[in-house]
Amino acid sequence: MSGLHLFSRTSRFVTRSVFSNSVFHKETTHFLVKRMASDGFRIETDSFGDLQVPSEKYYGANTARSLMNFKIGGPAEKMPIEVIHAFAILKKAAATVNQNFGLPGNIAKAIQQAADEVNSGSLDSHFPLVIWQTGSGTQSNMNVNEVIANRAIELLGGKLGSKDPVHPNDHVNKSQSSNDTYPTAMHIAVARSVNDTLLPGIKTLLAALEEKAAEFKDIVKIGRTHTQDATPLTLGQEFSGYIQQLKNGIARIEGCLPRIYELAAGGTAVGTGLNTRIGFAEGVADQVAKETGLPFVTAPNKFEALAAHDALVEISGALNTLACSLMKIANDIRFLASGPRCGLGELTLPENEPGSSIMPGKVNPTQCEAITMVCAQVMGNHVAVSVGGCNGHFELNVFKPMMVSNVLRSSRLIGDSCVSFTENCVRGITANKDRIDSLLHESLMLVTALNPHIGYDAAAKIAKTAHKNGKTLKETAIELKLLTAEQFDEWVQPEDMLGPK
Amino acid sequence: MSGLHLFSRTSRFVTRSVFSNSVFHKETTHFLVKRMASDGFRIETDSFGDLQVPSEKYYGANTARSLMNFKIGGPAEKMPIEVIHAFAILKKAAATVNQNFGLPGNIAKAIQQAADEVNSGSLDSHFPLVIWQTGSGTQSNMNVNEVIANRAIELLGGKLGSKDPVHPNDHVNKSQSSNDTYPTAMHIAVARSVNDTLLPGIKTLLAALEEKAAEFKDIVKIGRTHTQDATPLTLGQEFSGYIQQLKNGIARIEGCLPRIYELAAGGTAVGTGLNTRIGFAEGVADQVAKETGLPFVTAPNKFEALAAHDALVEISGALNTLACSLMKIANDIRFLASGPRCGLGELTLPENEPGSSIMPGKVNPTQCEAITMVCAQVMGNHVAVSVGGCNGHFELNVFKPMMVSNVLRSSRLIGDSCVSFTENCVRGITANKDRIDSLLHESLMLVTALNPHIGYDAAAKIAKTAHKNGKTLKETAIELKLLTAEQFDEWVQPEDMLGPK
Amino acid sequence: MSGLHLFSRTSRFVTRSVFSNSVFHKETTHFLVKRMASDGFRIETDSFGDLQVPSEKYYGANTARSLMNFKIGGPAEKMPIEVIHAFAILKKAAATVNQNFGLPGNIAKAIQQAADEVNSGSLDSHFPLVIWQTGSGTQSNMNVNEVIANRAIELLGGKLGSKDPVHPNDHVNKSQSSNDTYPTAMHIAVARSVNDTLLPGIKTLLAALEEKAAEFKDIVKIGRTHTQDATPLTLGQEFSGYIQQLKNGIARIEGCLPRIYELAAGGTAVGTGLNTRIGFAEGVADQVAKETGLPFVTAPNKFEALAAHDALVEISGALNTLACSLMKIANDIRFLASGPRCGLGELTLPENEPGSSIMPGKVNPTQCEAITMVCAQVMGNHVAVSVGGCNGHFELNVFKPMMVSNVLRSSRLIGDSCVSFTENCVRGITANKDRIDSLLHESLMLVTALNPHIGYDAAAKIAKTAHKNGKTLKETAIELKLLTAEQFDEWVQPEDMLGPK
Amino acid sequence: MSGLHLFSRTSRFVTRSVFSNSVFHKETTHFLVKRMASDGFRIETDSFGDLQVPSEKYYGANTARSLMNFKIGGPAEKMPIEVIHAFAILKKAAATVNQNFGLPGNIAKAIQQAADEVNSGSLDSHFPLVIWQTGSGTQSNMNVNEVIANRAIELLGGKLGSKDPVHPNDHVNKSQSSNDTYPTAMHIAVARSVNDTLLPGIKTLLAALEEKAAEFKDIVKIGRTHTQDATPLTLGQEFSGYIQQLKNGIARIEGCLPRIYELAAGGTAVGTGLNTRIGFAEGVADQVAKETGLPFVTAPNKFEALAAHDALVEISGALNTLACSLMKIANDIRFLASGPRCGLGELTLPENEPGSSIMPGKVNPTQCEAITMVCAQVMGNHVAVSVGGCNGHFELNVFKPMMVSNVLRSSRLIGDSCVSFTENCVRGITANKDRIDSLLHESLMLVTALNPHIGYDAAAKIAKTAHKNGKTLKETAIELKLLTAEQFDEWVQPEDMLGPK
Repeated sequence: MSGLHLFSRTSRFVTRSVFSNSVFHKETTHFLVKRMASDGFRIETDSFGDLQVPSEKYYGANTARSLMNFKIGGPAEKMPIEVIHAFAILKKAAATVNQNFGLPGNIAKAIQQAADEVNSGSLDSHFPLVIWQTGSGTQSNMNVNEVIANRAIELLGGKLGSKDPVHPNDHVNKSQSSNDTYPTAMHIAVARSVNDTLLPGIKTLLAALEEKAAEFKDIVKIGRTHTQDATPLTLGQEFSGYIQQLKNGIARIEGCLPRIYELAAGGTAVGTGLNTRIGFAEGVADQVAKETGLPFVTAPNKFEALAAHDALVEISGALNTLACSLMKIANDIRFLASGPRCGLGELTLPENEPGSSIMPGKVNPTQCEAITMVCAQVMGNHVAVSVGGCNGHFELNVFKPMMVSNVLRSSRLIGDSCVSFTENCVRGITANKDRIDSLLHESLMLVTALNPHIGYDAAAKIAKTAHKNGKTLKETAIELKLLTAEQFDEWVQPEDMLGPK
Repeated sequence: MSGLHLFSRTSRFVTRSVFSNSVFHKETTHFLVKRMASDGFRIETDSFGDLQVPSEKYYGANTARSLMNFKIGGPAEKMPIEVIHAFAILKKAAATVNQNFGLPGNIAKAIQQAADEVNSGSLDSHFPLVIWQTGSGTQSNMNVNEVIANRAIELLGGKLGSKDPVHPNDHVNKSQSSNDTYPTAMHIAVARSVNDTLLPGIKTLLAALEEKAAEFKDIVKIGRTHTQDATPLTLGQEFSGYIQQLKNGIARIEGCLPRIYELAAGGTAVGTGLNTRIGFAEGVADQVAKETGLPFVTAPNKFEALAAHDALVEISGALNTLACSLMKIANDIRFLASGPRCGLGELTLPENEPGSSIMPGKVNPTQCEAITMVCAQVMGNHVAVSVGGCNGHFELNVFKPMMVSNVLRSSRLIGDSCVSFTENCVRGITANKDRIDSLLHESLMLVTALNPHIGYDAAAKIAKTAHKNGKTLKETAIELKLLTAEQFDEWVQPEDMLGPK
Repeated sequence: MSGLHLFSRTSRFVTRSVFSNSVFHKETTHFLVKRMASDGFRIETDSFGDLQVPSEKYYGANTARSLMNFKIGGPAEKMPIEVIHAFAILKKAAATVNQNFGLPGNIAKAIQQAADEVNSGSLDSHFPLVIWQTGSGTQSNMNVNEVIANRAIELLGGKLGSKDPVHPNDHVNKSQSSNDTYPTAMHIAVARSVNDTLLPGIKTLLAALEEKAAEFKDIVKIGRTHTQDATPLTLGQEFSGYIQQLKNGIARIEGCLPRIYELAAGGTAVGTGLNTRIGFAEGVADQVAKETGLPFVTAPNKFEALAAHDALVEISGALNTLACSLMKIANDIRFLASGPRCGLGELTLPENEPGSSIMPGKVNPTQCEAITMVCAQVMGNHVAVSVGGCNGHFELNVFKPMMVSNVLRSSRLIGDSCVSFTENCVRGITANKDRIDSLLHESLMLVTALNPHIGYDAAAKIAKTAHKNGKTLKETAIELKLLTAEQFDEWVQPEDMLGPK
Repeated sequence: MSGLHLFSRTSRFVTRSVFSNSVFHKETTHFLVKRMASDGFRIETDSFGDLQVPSEKYYGANTARSLMNFKIGGPAEKMPIEVIHAFAILKKAAATVNQNFGLPGNIAKAIQQAADEVNSGSLDSHFPLVIWQTGSGTQSNMNVNEVIANRAIELLGGKLGSKDPVHPNDHVNKSQSSNDTYPTAMHIAVARSVNDTLLPGIKTLLAALEEKAAEFKDIVKIGRTHTQDATPLTLGQEFSGYIQQLKNGIARIEGCLPRIYELAAGGTAVGTGLNTRIGFAEGVADQVAKETGLPFVTAPNKFEALAAHDALVEISGALNTLACSLMKIANDIRFLASGPRCGLGELTLPENEPGSSIMPGKVNPTQCEAITMVCAQVMGNHVAVSVGGCNGHFELNVFKPMMVSNVLRSSRLIGDSCVSFTENCVRGITANKDRIDSLLHESLMLVTALNPHIGYDAAAKIAKTAHKNGKTLKETAIELKLLTAEQFDEWVQPEDMLGPK
């Protein structure tokens, strides 16, 4: 992008390095330079005037102008490419439906082909805008319109920047506004991310945990409540709790999808659908559903679909709940695997890398660390989404790019980190049976098994005395003459303490 | 509570004013004072020793001890009474089921009657503990056990504090642990609050908005996007967006309820159900369902039900989404009603109170302010719930009282503020038709109606010129010779701009 | 409050049970009842009309009207009494300064005395309003004005409700608006809570930790990084980290106070100071400083002081940081004390209560649980404060009561829980020296001491081989012929690994 | 990175496309391939075995291994380059100090030169790792060690991957651990970002607001409280509130810096400074201070510096407060500029781009939208930082990369968006004096000026009557015979209502 030359809106030569924040003098004279591009650039026009655009880029004046006006955060802050791809699906669908309402077939076909290319990822470098632009995502909508229009022009043998025979507004954006297309793209992008990355990621982890729970189903171990020794359970039972958490997590995400599948397209500027045709909204939703294989429908109320993004707040809440679940699971696993000598030591995690640059032989629960960091991030993203979500005004919420970028980031990060956690940690977890067994039999909490036989108070006395004297329950019980060795052995059997009777 | 006299665990006289933080010396000698209560007090005992308890209170030593150990926040920080009432429902259910497993009928009956009294609210003053106690809510469970046991003892003619014939642990808490009863009470309390306060509150507001939307269905007004003038819609359409938000909000809450209806009871200490009988868990859930009329079931996995409270994080997320919706709605209403002379002035809100202590005649959107403050609180509560939810360890999450108190507070605050907002604001909203009409016709955005006739660029020229010269669109269009007066009148009709064609 | 009878603004009899949400029909007929109070009530008037107020209450019509209009959350949601007391300090100061500007001495004196009574807490029952009212706190300002005026009237022998000789607006609120008084009261209340509860609480904990660090200074123990065994440190060093956290925490809070000490008083309605006299603002700040002994000053910019409450967001951020520190400290302590047999077991915490209603002998880190729940709450409160803080509009932020109630709650909860944690946990912590020593010598991480002698790679080989074979470092080192027993003993000395050389 | 060939730890050929999550079979046969790299690759070794690394990259086995193990989020999730550059400063400083403790001069010099190159940005492409790795940032520390070592080897004529004559651990990482270097790099990076981007950005905005406040100092306008008309102030006074907010914001950030300037270096693995020399910590801090020109010092307590990152939570809190300030300011500006015909219309913002893809002539407050989206993001980032900050355990917090990346992102986004907002919005704001004046004189709130003359109640009557009848205050006052036209003109002068008297 360096060296990008642009005409200002008053049509004089201007050289600005994009993403620098140097002060920019807008008022200068100009004369003969109008519409004369320098080498390697062509002229593009919007309602504000002419701008130079790099010859090799398909985007136009709106995009170039946004690059000038929003130098915030640098390349790391680009509009998520998933949103761009989703836009392409929408533009293709709109072209298809618009044919029914008069869009010439050759133009529709060129738009469709160009849109397919955008969706394929091959034109990603033509989408340079950042998240921090107009809050309706107008400029990214125009970026898509411009790239598709120019590419379609090219396909039809026209001249880039001529808007002929394919006009970015009149054809590519036909029957659309940023205000309904951007939220449509948001929902398409989120639905795809959830179905392609998030849910498969969680299910991968779920399957691995189910394998482990089965593998560990007969390993009786000490339970821990309040981080303190408690009554026993099997390691498989312990893992079954994680499984239930993830199953619920999947149900939570899936429960949000019906509202994500609702598309704003057809609402145009304020939700009324001005300048669209009856049937356009439904037609677009049908086409998008066909293209994606996902059950998209037109939103039942377009005013809500433009002015509020509660559906994103909602699914962000489900992601937040998942983050809480995963934080719990990963924390448990790292504490159960703490050691090797001075921790709980019940589990062994696979060694994936040298653990310390100073302590040789140290192996760390790095996958747990990565995923718990992700969880914290997702919890933070959720607050950003919520703050954006509550700040819509009148007919439009203008925190759209921020909201969707956080939801997409959370979805991707959870999906990916579930897979990484599964492959590099969970699948390789082994149980240290000797350690588990030794801890179990040292525990004082097996005393609970005596409650039905000798009562709570007598049982408590045994436990407290054993604790005080550093002795076993059995020794103590006998010393206190509260029961015989035989009774102890009969009554205190951890494997009998694993369920109701 | 002032002047509460307690025996310390080493059984000497101690006078502590509860909720002061004065240093407390625990180690002193004692001799003949054991089990001798001072006037107005009786002796209660737990496994740590004897304590004096006010004679008129039903609670026992565990409760008194908690008052000594957790002087955090004062009376404003009490365990939500909804949790106590929910506990009563559970204790009654457990007594019913325990009869099948050997609990004598007269004891069961006395427990049930005492539990009914607790649930009725008549014994609320016997539950003095604060939220900030053991993270499993153990002491509130014991508070309930003690109050029910003592009241049941009283009903059966026994002596308070004697634990005879009704023992707080052996009878009232039979087959239970704090670890499963507290989360059971959490779910019962939340389910009741949601069904009794939250959902009726939202539905009250929804109904009022539906009435207004019908009343306003023919009022055409200027739309606003980016807070700027946009194309028209009806005031009824604008309100229909709010309606959709609330309908979705109800669906979101209801979507969480299946997991709220899952009860942990029967999991006991670590989730295995140790010391319960087969069928106890299911029986308790049945009884609770019968008592409340809500479809409670036993949780499919008790390990999850004790160690994670994802269901609370989830419903807190739904409350957070509702908060975002309500913030948007209330913000819109106050801005639309801003004025009376220098704001948007499209709506008039009912005058409920003098608005300013210095500016006479000023009327403020105070109901909007109350409900938006509630929304901010709910958004904060949600973060507290999430932080608690992600911090469970091993077999137990120990942020229970904090989590449930936030969810209950959010549920109540939203429910109540929806009703207050409805009764004191929404129902009394009137539309200022003259003002709305005058703004509509001043707007430049009606120009959008010309796009299909003269093209985007020509339409833009009219709008920009009119804006620059402070003239109307019609005047400008004619001056620019882009269309005739007749064409303008024919094409620019706000009432034709309210939907697709 | 039950049975409170009120005249509505249209002066007919109305009976409403405060805090119920039953629907309320505002339009009914009325006839001769105007200004005729029923038994036990008197008539009070505001610019909206007459209302019945309970005879024994000092508050007036504004307060009664607020009770009718804001039935949100019930008594648990009352405006923090600290705000009311702070208001009293302000009203007294204003009366003092207003004497210089014409307020008659006898009226001023009566106001001052009444204000002192309010500040003393003896009139707390006259302040029934909830947080969820007008966002500027107008009604609580009027509640204070009314109570002080009526009490001053009483002191001067007048008739309650007569506004003569002391008028709530013209005298008690003279030169003031809710818009500047409420934020003034916020800052006074927060400054007092921070100085009286928060900082002393933290310092109590700090002192206890310093004692423990000194007590533990020679106990060498295994370090843990990534929850895994690491190189050794002393237990005293470990505690010194907590000390540093709290010292920084105190500095952070103190760093916020200069902006908390800035008072909005004198800004009146919009910040201009309309209807005040030159010198009023400064005079009030001086009087408040004198009364409280805290260095209050008049805010340098009153527009900021009314429209933004960044100072509350800021100190809430410092409380949030403290919450993070305390969460870390309390988590460490409970994990280090985990066991008694199956955890880390390095620390023993004092036993304060029976730990489990089902597992006898179990003792839980309940103080850690209470304080970590507080930390989560404070983190959530902070988000609520931030959402409120970012939502001010034009000349006024109308999230005031919500913001200050969260800051006060966080301040109180941290202060109190620090004291509870100190008294009931930290002071009684003992180190299990045998366990600590045994873990230390089992550790493989002492191998780090060999890096400078045999290199990182050789050291790593010893550690990994020992780990694999379950042997000690020394055995393994000798077996691998990498060093002699003598060398090992000379080089691997934990007490030599505690600092740079 | 596609096609990267790596040896697995068991030394057989493996082809993995980095950042895909395809399942990876770790167990395959291998035979003679050990230590034989394929074309375009060289062999690098760590304690886990050999790996192929692209020949043109300076990084080594640790980095390559991390790429295999942490396929989370893709390239958008890279470790912030600011952290890498900060690491380079640290490594240079360490090399300088290590010379005093035996590091050969030629090695030190080569390390310093390589570190300078890293800091210059010219080697950025050699740092491919993502945020979501080990929570101590170990792998990024090793990435830096490896790149510097290989580049230094190259400078000294050695062979890449040979670790000779410069070893990544023994020389580049000498006297260091990830556990102290990563937090040192965090503090350096944050301090630089704050000083280079954040504070200059805020100051740019502050200066522009000060210019505008001066420009607008005599424009009297209506005030608005509760979004309703209130007493007047000047537009300059209104802007002065924003100025105060930013001044305080700068003070808040600067107040955090002393703790950011504290460096962990010298603490090594657990904070004790094991394997460093006395004076190393202080020497490194001195060198870093010299290199950066910022007043870095060695942290007073290294245990705190490794185990807690309260300093990041703290400064994130200050960023959060700034976000709230900026949200308020930008919201005000967009509402004051709402219109052009149907909003408040007091301000005109510069037109930077076409506002709508469907509504011609529409200009939107896009810079306000970008910066308010940034504010929401910063508020969310803050929660992520806080959740990470409260989750440290024992001697190490392992949320480091997540925490620092959020703080850096917030700092950059606020800094950049302040500049963009200034250049593209604030500097071009103009006041619509006619509109402002017309609104002012329509207002009813000027009635407040009459309070001192005719009393609150009479003034209120005028205002309410005028409101009811849609007339002016003056007309109404005369009609009500409460004052004469002359009195009205004398007493009601907006320019006399701008301050105390």
